Amino acid sequence: MSKPPHQSQIRTDVRRQPDRQDGRRTSLNEILDSSYVAHVSFVVDGSPRVIPTLHARAGDVLYLHGSPAAGFLRAARKGQELCVAVTQLDGLVLARSAFHHSANYRSAVIYGAATRIEDPSEKRSALDTFVDAIIPDRRSSLREMTDTDIRQTEIVSVPLDEWSVKTRTGPPSDEEEDYALPIWAGVVPLTTVHGAPEPDHHTSPDLPLPEHLKKVLG
Amino acid sequence: MSKPPHQSQIRTDVRRQPDRQDGRRTSLNEILDSSYVAHVSFVVDGSPRVIPTLHARAGDVLYLHGSPAAGFLRAARKGQELCVAVTQLDGLVLARSAFHHSANYRSAVIYGAATRIEDPSEKRSALDTFVDAIIPDRRSSLREMTDTDIRQTEIVSVPLDEWSVKTRTGPPSDEEEDYALPIWAGVVPLTTVHGAPEPDHHTSPDLPLPEHLKKVLG
Repeated sequence: MSKPPHQSQIRTDVRRQPDRQDGRRTSLNEILDSSYVAHVSFVVDGSPRVIPTLHARAGDVLYLHGSPAAGFLRAARKGQELCVAVTQLDGLVLARSAFHHSANYRSAVIYGAATRIEDPSEKRSALDTFVDAIIPDRRSSLREMTDTDIRQTEIVSVPLDEWSVKTRTGPPSDEEEDYALPIWAGVVPLTTVHGAPEPDHHTSPDLPLPEHLKKVLG
Repeated sequence: MSKPPHQSQIRTDVRRQPDRQDGRRTSLNEILDSSYVAHVSFVVDGSPRVIPTLHARAGDVLYLHGSPAAGFLRAARKGQELCVAVTQLDGLVLARSAFHHSANYRSAVIYGAATRIEDPSEKRSALDTFVDAIIPDRRSSLREMTDTDIRQTEIVSVPLDEWSVKTRTGPPSDEEEDYALPIWAGVVPLTTVHGAPEPDHHTSPDLPLPEHLKKVLG
């Protein structure tokens, strides 16, 4: 398989376990779209920082947002590069030796400088997209954003140009001579589930659960 | 409440939303012990990197392990500082305005240089601890680690000296005038669940599910 352009950079080549690298853009999209949390790393005075935050993909960019005072947004404003990881842990892989224990996962890492969205109407539209990426169709049920809301939120986009996807699936890989040992080996699957929505005490009991929440719950 | 020593550093003071900071060491332990994945960030040629990896707490240190070729372990060997985030997302917080949407979470961030564990017997013991931190009591059911297994794995410890814990719980906080709006607001809880263990095809059907896996499943 020829290398897609996003892998032309040294840092997106998976040096270790290259069989786990997945160069498909659809795989990147799937990981980003099915996860809520991204871990954003940046550099402050030469030291690494990493913080969790919500994210939203829109086409070829990843949106990140927060208070203008948030550390990663201050780094982004200075034009500094970010590195963003989005990870789904799918299972614990239990082998017959400690050495071959592993995890099943889907992992995306994105590198790039972020662009601040400054134009108020563009910003409003990006924030709408953000809400609907977390809970599809929720935005239209909310009260309109005020100018203050928009001023108090910063939103930036990171291009999906330089990225790397790594996945592991399937049973453990043991040493050939270990397979005959009477040791239970296999996979314990892990999934994230949505619980029953808990309305706050201001929500009228007469208000039905909105359709967009029924969809999230599957 | 007086500030515990781990908060003496500027970088562990939560500047934004200081009411979300939790200075209790028991909270740090709880987050680390109930999570499988850590996101480790480090700096390469001035650029940020972040990768997901399994972790294990043992007393006052966090163990990280992997192939000696792994990027974060190479950075650690050079004495470079790491920043490690462990995050549990507990719920989506749905408010009446887009602005007040949020998430319930427990987040730990640890800063520090890692110490490589070099002595083979110390390394063996740390790796045993690692396996049992992921699946309690699993280690004793496995075949012994060989010298090659131990040589091919690197394990480092990061002291739990400089850290920060931030949490959010509870319903949305809306603008006072928004509470009366006929909009469903509240929390959609999120939890990670263990599925039924899937033995690999080398595991004899006569082999019962070990007690240590029954415990993981609750």
